[in-house]
Amino acid sequence: MSTTIKEIAAKLGISISTVSKGLNGASDISEELRQMVLDTAVEMGYQTKRMKKEENKKLCIFVENMEYETANQFGYEIILGFKQMATRDHWEVSLVPTNPNVQSYEKYDSYMLRNGFSGAFLVGFALQDDWMKQLEKTKYPTVLLDNYVAKNPHVAYIGTDSYEGIDLAVDHLARLGHKKIAYFSGSPNSMVTTQRYEAYVNSMNAHNLVIDPEMIAFGYYVTESARHHVPGLLNSGATAIVCGSDLMAAGTIQECIERGYKVPEDISVVGFDDLPIASFTDPPITTIRQDRLNIGKSAYYVLSSLLNHVAVSRSTMRAQLIKRESTAVVEKKAESK
Amino acid sequence: MSTTIKEIAAKLGISISTVSKGLNGASDISEELRQMVLDTAVEMGYQTKRMKKEENKKLCIFVENMEYETANQFGYEIILGFKQMATRDHWEVSLVPTNPNVQSYEKYDSYMLRNGFSGAFLVGFALQDDWMKQLEKTKYPTVLLDNYVAKNPHVAYIGTDSYEGIDLAVDHLARLGHKKIAYFSGSPNSMVTTQRYEAYVNSMNAHNLVIDPEMIAFGYYVTESARHHVPGLLNSGATAIVCGSDLMAAGTIQECIERGYKVPEDISVVGFDDLPIASFTDPPITTIRQDRLNIGKSAYYVLSSLLNHVAVSRSTMRAQLIKRESTAVVEKKAESK
Repeated sequence: MSTTIKEIAAKLGISISTVSKGLNGASDISEELRQMVLDTAVEMGYQTKRMKKEENKKLCIFVENMEYETANQFGYEIILGFKQMATRDHWEVSLVPTNPNVQSYEKYDSYMLRNGFSGAFLVGFALQDDWMKQLEKTKYPTVLLDNYVAKNPHVAYIGTDSYEGIDLAVDHLARLGHKKIAYFSGSPNSMVTTQRYEAYVNSMNAHNLVIDPEMIAFGYYVTESARHHVPGLLNSGATAIVCGSDLMAAGTIQECIERGYKVPEDISVVGFDDLPIASFTDPPITTIRQDRLNIGKSAYYVLSSLLNHVAVSRSTMRAQLIKRESTAVVEKKAESK
Repeated sequence: MSTTIKEIAAKLGISISTVSKGLNGASDISEELRQMVLDTAVEMGYQTKRMKKEENKKLCIFVENMEYETANQFGYEIILGFKQMATRDHWEVSLVPTNPNVQSYEKYDSYMLRNGFSGAFLVGFALQDDWMKQLEKTKYPTVLLDNYVAKNPHVAYIGTDSYEGIDLAVDHLARLGHKKIAYFSGSPNSMVTTQRYEAYVNSMNAHNLVIDPEMIAFGYYVTESARHHVPGLLNSGATAIVCGSDLMAAGTIQECIERGYKVPEDISVVGFDDLPIASFTDPPITTIRQDRLNIGKSAYYVLSSLLNHVAVSRSTMRAQLIKRESTAVVEKKAESK
């Protein structure tokens, strides 16, 4: 990819000379503008000598089970935010897709050593992965998205506050008059999945709402999973469904419509993540936003802390309720369906 | 206080010219040495023009219910760590002791506005304080030590991982053969006090140990509190006591000895915090260390994130078990006492 200064200027709607000043650290433009130019240059893959990395300053982002190539995929902004911050501190950042095979072939520490990485950010790993177990003993500063390793001061967890996120969803529905609120999420094979389910139970209790086991379903974090689980939730009499991801919510809406339920008139649906797709479905999805760019930036700050022997254990970000059109006041009709 | 360059040099054991280079940003000394000189200058209250703050860049540390004036007090390193990091970014930091009266006299936001503070770090506040309630709505970036405010993206919590800390204590005692482990802490009027008690319950369960209500006592975070509560714990047959602070542990040891129990032969005692005093008691106290300097540094990083609209919710630091001489393998004799 050979981005030009002209392209950066076009994207930002500023002059070529301003971009040039930003890239070269001229003092007659504001710090904010300079950072915006640099951040955009990183996003577009442009590099100047000034941005060049120092020798032997290398970090790695390992990615598994997560799409990140295009701006509408979950991992894109997380990786971008991390790279933007790391670049300011002159780190070279490698992006390495991995899988269970790679992990059984070489140990985490030896991979880090062989490639000269000072630290890493692991995204999308599953609890049963080989490297996850090895992280209990590693001395390499490592930040994990959405998973937690106990007692090792070289490893930290970063993610969105699941408890507050799910509570925002349940609270929003309760205020709309819903009492029969179902929960549809991925199977508990990661820390956050377990936390979100706990959060649903806590929040239903806090709102004095009855938890009906028939209104709880665990599937996969993909659209198609709705087909197998949503019919049961509809039959249970739910008037609202809190979903573990926007993809699950999109599948849920589709399944509801195919079965003759109107969204949101008959049934309200809430997603999680606020992927770009959440704005484009019909109806657009009310969802719990994870601020992915800032998760990436914070992941860098936490890794930077670990590299400086500041043993951060967990760092979580606020979730945010984004109201769109897939939720509405409960209808008497729906309630008795 | 008028510290001289000579005094800084003496404290660090380096030459005056090296200190001078560090303070003036000379390029022929290492970055690590330069930071060490600057950090020490901040600690000793020395200021150069180069370290001078920018106009209108002001942060505030509010302190309540916490001693911080001398190096052996709990708040000292927390405040020092925060100031060291803030100074690098050219913030002016004010330290303002406060109390419930001040808070009833003026609202938090108006205090911040009137004094031109961009953000604040609140240390030692109690849940029932007026300002705590006002933090639910504030727009001022605010970091709270050991307390949590729900749903406001301008407020973040920082502290030590209580769950892991208490688990380290219980696990250490369980490995020494203790089964009758008592818990003695402050009354649950802050988030961390509640968390630590939950952590004790969780950890006892995880170790398959019986929780006896007679082995649980809530007092105050001061030495004298032991007098009222420790006799009951001793009568209950406990062979070990996990305390909520080193001061409570010091009082507990004293009380045990006065009642004819040897520490650690008859009863093991674990503290919390790792204050300097923990090394000087007889016996020195096995404790759970809170890394206070790094809590202060992280508090600055989190406040800095909030100032940049990165909505960190919680950030916790690892706790660490420091083994000294107040714990030992359980004796058959003690067990049947």
